[in-house]
Amino acid sequence: MLLRTSTLLLRTLREDPADAELASHKLLVRAGYIRRAAPGGFSWLPLGLRVLRKVERIVREEMDAIGAQEVHFPALLPKEPYEATGRWEEYGPNLFRLQDRRGADFLLAPTHEEMFTLLVKDQCSSYKDLPLSLYQVQTKYRDEARPRAGLLRGREFVMKDSYSFDVDDAGLEKAYQRHREAYVRIFDRLGLEYVIVSAVSGAMGGSASEEFLHPSPQGEDTYVRSAGGYAANVEAVTTVAPEPVRWDDAPPAVVRDTPDTPTIDTLVAVSNQLHPREDRPWEASDTLKNVIVLLRHPDGSTEPLAVGVPGDREVDAKRLEAAVSPAAVEPFDEAQFAQHPELVKGYIGPGGLGLRPTGETGEDGRPATTGIRYLLDPRIAPGTAWITGADQPGKHVYGLVAGRDFTGDGTIDAAEVRDGDPAPDGSGPLETARGMEMGHIFQLGRKYAEALGLQVLDENGKLVTVTMGSYGVGVSRAVAAIAEAGHDELGLVWPRSVSPVDVHVVVAGKDAAVVEGGERLAAELVAAGLDVLLDDRPRVSPGVKFKDAELVGVPTIVTVGKRLSEGVVEVRDRATGERTDVPVGDAAQHLVALVRG
Amino acid sequence: MLLRTSTLLLRTLREDPADAELASHKLLVRAGYIRRAAPGGFSWLPLGLRVLRKVERIVREEMDAIGAQEVHFPALLPKEPYEATGRWEEYGPNLFRLQDRRGADFLLAPTHEEMFTLLVKDQCSSYKDLPLSLYQVQTKYRDEARPRAGLLRGREFVMKDSYSFDVDDAGLEKAYQRHREAYVRIFDRLGLEYVIVSAVSGAMGGSASEEFLHPSPQGEDTYVRSAGGYAANVEAVTTVAPEPVRWDDAPPAVVRDTPDTPTIDTLVAVSNQLHPREDRPWEASDTLKNVIVLLRHPDGSTEPLAVGVPGDREVDAKRLEAAVSPAAVEPFDEAQFAQHPELVKGYIGPGGLGLRPTGETGEDGRPATTGIRYLLDPRIAPGTAWITGADQPGKHVYGLVAGRDFTGDGTIDAAEVRDGDPAPDGSGPLETARGMEMGHIFQLGRKYAEALGLQVLDENGKLVTVTMGSYGVGVSRAVAAIAEAGHDELGLVWPRSVSPVDVHVVVAGKDAAVVEGGERLAAELVAAGLDVLLDDRPRVSPGVKFKDAELVGVPTIVTVGKRLSEGVVEVRDRATGERTDVPVGDAAQHLVALVRG
Repeated sequence: MLLRTSTLLLRTLREDPADAELASHKLLVRAGYIRRAAPGGFSWLPLGLRVLRKVERIVREEMDAIGAQEVHFPALLPKEPYEATGRWEEYGPNLFRLQDRRGADFLLAPTHEEMFTLLVKDQCSSYKDLPLSLYQVQTKYRDEARPRAGLLRGREFVMKDSYSFDVDDAGLEKAYQRHREAYVRIFDRLGLEYVIVSAVSGAMGGSASEEFLHPSPQGEDTYVRSAGGYAANVEAVTTVAPEPVRWDDAPPAVVRDTPDTPTIDTLVAVSNQLHPREDRPWEASDTLKNVIVLLRHPDGSTEPLAVGVPGDREVDAKRLEAAVSPAAVEPFDEAQFAQHPELVKGYIGPGGLGLRPTGETGEDGRPATTGIRYLLDPRIAPGTAWITGADQPGKHVYGLVAGRDFTGDGTIDAAEVRDGDPAPDGSGPLETARGMEMGHIFQLGRKYAEALGLQVLDENGKLVTVTMGSYGVGVSRAVAAIAEAGHDELGLVWPRSVSPVDVHVVVAGKDAAVVEGGERLAAELVAAGLDVLLDDRPRVSPGVKFKDAELVGVPTIVTVGKRLSEGVVEVRDRATGERTDVPVGDAAQHLVALVRG
Repeated sequence: MLLRTSTLLLRTLREDPADAELASHKLLVRAGYIRRAAPGGFSWLPLGLRVLRKVERIVREEMDAIGAQEVHFPALLPKEPYEATGRWEEYGPNLFRLQDRRGADFLLAPTHEEMFTLLVKDQCSSYKDLPLSLYQVQTKYRDEARPRAGLLRGREFVMKDSYSFDVDDAGLEKAYQRHREAYVRIFDRLGLEYVIVSAVSGAMGGSASEEFLHPSPQGEDTYVRSAGGYAANVEAVTTVAPEPVRWDDAPPAVVRDTPDTPTIDTLVAVSNQLHPREDRPWEASDTLKNVIVLLRHPDGSTEPLAVGVPGDREVDAKRLEAAVSPAAVEPFDEAQFAQHPELVKGYIGPGGLGLRPTGETGEDGRPATTGIRYLLDPRIAPGTAWITGADQPGKHVYGLVAGRDFTGDGTIDAAEVRDGDPAPDGSGPLETARGMEMGHIFQLGRKYAEALGLQVLDENGKLVTVTMGSYGVGVSRAVAAIAEAGHDELGLVWPRSVSPVDVHVVVAGKDAAVVEGGERLAAELVAAGLDVLLDDRPRVSPGVKFKDAELVGVPTIVTVGKRLSEGVVEVRDRATGERTDVPVGDAAQHLVALVRG
């Protein structure tokens, strides 16, 4: 196919758009690939649409290759199925909701688990109908609070979502692995670097959910990795707990005056001033901080939760949310504190939380309790000693030993993960990095099948609930990620697999011979099956054309110019900048070989 | 590509779906092409999606062939541009409106004139940037009051819409013609019979708007055609007015008692009873009926309008709406009548409407007027004499002569069109027919460019407003129309151009030789580049497989069965039912030739 710059809707801009932060966003707009059309909504111009379609094609080919079958659902859907699974409410303000002319509730689907489940329920009745994998490439909607980063986080975007249906866990595991391998091929073909990270903690089964993250300082997701190959979402990292230590020789705990020490910083300073330790100064890591939050359960009920973490670490909101899911986390506000006078803000200790130091009992002779559930960071291991609140203003208790003086109701992985923390698999220290989520594979299990009644007869004629996997690729997002990964100061640099055309031919001159030479070369390339962009603009200088070619980013740029009189055209590699003179007679063959690789 | 029935998501149904009326709807559901997913929303199953994609591909190829460039806009759009053109309001309840989390107004776009106009405004500044034609294949939304007829009238559907941009009318005319020719090729390739009908009356320019209708008794649109080749939307038919006649010899008008005659039927009966005519009985066509409606103008103001038509014809609501557009038509209710005591319901005549019979004057010496605009059917030609209301209960005036005794404020084409009416171009009597609107081409002119400020510099450096054309093809609707046009009592019958696969191979038997023969033939066809559906279900009888093959409707069905032992397979033409025995060794070559046509 031949595209001519003289007629193509392609207006490059020299200035960055005012609302763009990321290089990919700026360059995709400047190079004429996309335009903003709405908050979080973009128009695809001819070159941009070609890149999007190439990404879609690669995704489709790899889905077809694993036997997944393409279908297509409406984006505008009735409320009822999403109400049956609880997602109509759960999505909160992220869901676009609307009513039709009769007042019936509809939504713009952010994902289609419900519809796929209902389709399979409608179509399949026996184990013989399974396994089955279905997918669609669809426009999705999400009412992002702050749509930003161009295509990376929009309100209307293209995703491939697929779902697997199996009668048993072994089948799901196989479908999951097949999707995982397909995703590896997809991102390899897209030329997009990726890390596969665990997305849920080991406790739930290591492979039940993984994300394909593209490492990028511009990414919105934080993940951790070790030199030894461990990689996980921050939410999924399990803490390596220290070995329990014996407390035989530990001195008894002592309550001390610590006036005006509602924060860890003030507590450490006052401790070193009034109660110094002989061998070394007190540090934040010697303190135990107790944070109270309010959990809201899916049924609407609420419950206070206390989380104990070493004072040198914050509670990580995402890790906490993941740990308590499906409950939501809300702040524990003044009104809540008023209901719990035993909780002295700034001085909360295990005493006030319910399990008083051993020996202290309530009037009934049993340990007095506030009824607040108390979960501890795994670092608060048996035998470790802490400075923590004494449940009285201006007082802390020193040398409070876990296991001896207090115990929690369990452990929780909610403390922040830091560079240098050990990887849970022993593969070395972790380092945090940022990435863009490009794909997600997830063993959903039977949640949707149960909610919507998807059952089939098994080999023994017994009804069994189907188990599902859910697999997504951000298609429009991939375009932005590729642009972000492959650009330089001159413009975009596409990999061949998704470049809008194969070759960009620049006619650099007005001489009839040059113009004709460019036309002839372009025609030869098109005849050989290549897609060509021919810059045939008669009134534009070679300098402007070269600048545009760098900006547009086709991997191979051919200049047909002055040196045509010597029988030579120049082939330029956009990525490396390398220039090669090629005899014009061999040019077509040379370029076809280059493109076909 | 090889699809295997054993694994394909394809469950045929023997029963019609309860909510389906049209054969296309019933069969597309029964044959496993689509499923209802929402009111007016359908899921596309694997075979259906293949047909849809083939239609899309044909449309794209023909758009590309006329140099139109593909782009893609969001479906979820902000209100503002649609407010600027007045369409936010004009669309009324047909528009899906919603708000985002911040309360900003959005819509789901039914068409994209505004966005295309704004894009070109953003990208083009000079006549050198034009002409330009852009298109998209997009999901559109329309809040249909009664979504029905399956894919023919849904709330979420796929359309190709394109827009041309030119500096002058001659350019628009060229773009229009190019689109017209492309549409002819599209519908030819889709194998869909069509009639090109004028969609606006001749007064606005005959070619300014045309529709491609697929003639079908199931169609929702009524149009008229003559044996001589005239075809038009009912709204677009102009009435052939009779020649004016001299009134020199016409007797004067006389008011007569016509008790209890508020309807044309009673008036004709009473006239023949009390005031018979010598030569022949009075007929409804001798009477003049005056109908009052309320016009609501786009600025919200209202105005009564009187329409005079021969008593044997109704006012056609669609023709009236088209004639008074952009004003809307509302009923003239009791409250309105109360404000006009001079209008005597059932006995309204030109007197009460303002222009009294010549000679009668008001107190000021000038013809008394009610101020109501009065438009006449062209058949009320000068010199024609009528029985009409005398503006008194129980009285009509006889022999009231148009031009002598009354005149209107103009003419209007609002009376119903009937079989036998003359075609406006003299090509013979009209007959009405029903059709499905498959495409629409329309010279929009400068409406959107003016509303949104799309101007470019012309050759003289002067700013000129761009003129636009708008062109649509119903893509998902075409799938239904093709299914409706091409089915028989056994099932669907696809034309080759859009069939989900090229050949349907039925393995009719369990013998290893038969199974292997089917597999081998399918593999040969796939190797030759054909798409094949192989019915390889091991536990399904040949009879059921044949039934399914007829239902699914692939144009060529090959049976590999018992006669394979004689070295023969049977090739069946789905449309004609013709069966041909082909030596198995020649089968692949034979079928490839058949498919490649």
